[in-house]
Amino acid sequence: MILVTNDDGITAGGIKQLIEISSEFGEVVVVAPNSPQSAKGHAITIYDPLRLNEVDIFDGIKAYECSGTPVDCVKLAKHHVLKGRKVDLCVSGINHGSNASINIVYSGTMSAAMEASLEGIDAIGFSLLDFSSKADFSQGAPFIRQIIKDHLDVGRSEGTLINVNIPKHKTEDIKGIKVCRQARGTWQENYKQAQDPSGRDYFWLSGDFINEDHSEDTDLWALENGYISVVPSTFDLTKYDELDYFKRLEDIRI
Amino acid sequence: MILVTNDDGITAGGIKQLIEISSEFGEVVVVAPNSPQSAKGHAITIYDPLRLNEVDIFDGIKAYECSGTPVDCVKLAKHHVLKGRKVDLCVSGINHGSNASINIVYSGTMSAAMEASLEGIDAIGFSLLDFSSKADFSQGAPFIRQIIKDHLDVGRSEGTLINVNIPKHKTEDIKGIKVCRQARGTWQENYKQAQDPSGRDYFWLSGDFINEDHSEDTDLWALENGYISVVPSTFDLTKYDELDYFKRLEDIRI
Repeated sequence: MILVTNDDGITAGGIKQLIEISSEFGEVVVVAPNSPQSAKGHAITIYDPLRLNEVDIFDGIKAYECSGTPVDCVKLAKHHVLKGRKVDLCVSGINHGSNASINIVYSGTMSAAMEASLEGIDAIGFSLLDFSSKADFSQGAPFIRQIIKDHLDVGRSEGTLINVNIPKHKTEDIKGIKVCRQARGTWQENYKQAQDPSGRDYFWLSGDFINEDHSEDTDLWALENGYISVVPSTFDLTKYDELDYFKRLEDIRI
Repeated sequence: MILVTNDDGITAGGIKQLIEISSEFGEVVVVAPNSPQSAKGHAITIYDPLRLNEVDIFDGIKAYECSGTPVDCVKLAKHHVLKGRKVDLCVSGINHGSNASINIVYSGTMSAAMEASLEGIDAIGFSLLDFSSKADFSQGAPFIRQIIKDHLDVGRSEGTLINVNIPKHKTEDIKGIKVCRQARGTWQENYKQAQDPSGRDYFWLSGDFINEDHSEDTDLWALENGYISVVPSTFDLTKYDELDYFKRLEDIRI
């Protein structure tokens, strides 16, 4: 059984496409936010109750909308909706816009996939580099189908996590798939500062993404060159190559 | 100059302690949430405007409260409040409760530190293993002071990120510091399901942390054995040891 979620909300075009592809492989259950939850990162809802409603908007597919974040959706799916059932794969997306490079840490789409992964469920997040409300999610579909098929064929079931980004090209113009590392990049923020109707200042987040990493083994390079990027990812944030460097802190005495 | 933030909110006891320690080393600027923001992960606010108000609650310290998430606070600090100024170090916390093991990915405290780190500012997140409103944040203070001092002495300024967790012990009972890796663990959720006054179901997140990793090189082992844990951490989520494993996806043709 495949669990499908996203961060753009259950009525978004991307999740519809992903549900259609996933259904080709067997049973699908959808638990997705009832409102847009972009850039919610790995947030969970602890101060408020959550709502969960079954909805009938995908033909013959069991689907629930949840008032929480994408990670809440995965937790509610695993520990309540699907309690005790084996989930073969969790797919998240297809996201409107890139989750390549550092965007993975802000992304609700990828955080949902990471939550599945850290709970031991193999997970794939899919994103299309197109923010337009008219984005055509079908162009990457043949590749998405093959990536899901590969995963189900291998049947790893150990919490594998991959971040798949798809360039905004026609199917025939996508050059193929590159397996790569996360490029180093940041956002150069430029807050829009203005006054509300009461004359009080407000700030609205706005910025430009800066690619600080131009080598050819990165997701940004793959995307800029017409490939789908696949980054094997992890929830283990330990920087292993600095364990020795910081050992000196063990000498601190007070 | 040291930037101080947290996720428990600007009036929390932990940030007060951290400001006091940081002030011993020079200028301090505080930008912290105006409300509790625990478990907000790396969420940023994109659909709503942010508010930022200067407040006079720490003697002689420039401080701002922000309506956003911990990551919003760091972004507003870097790109607006401190625009163009060099930040020597960002410290976040002291958090109420553990951010060891997988808790790092849910933590607003650590996500604020990670945001500073990925923007090139060295960052340290501090957490005390005590959820009580009467938690005594002073017990770990001598160690926090030395860890900050070490960082400023070394002056790395390349976006180093470390996750420091402090056991709930008297200063003299803390055995020292262990530099370690993030232990593997998960939450076994047990949602509280009930009805609101209108008779509609709601779910409230509740769960137990499960340690799945009992080796002696982990943060959980250090904490259980009376040590402060220090985990060098990263925002590069690439799982490098799986790059080869997934290379086969490059053979997909459609």
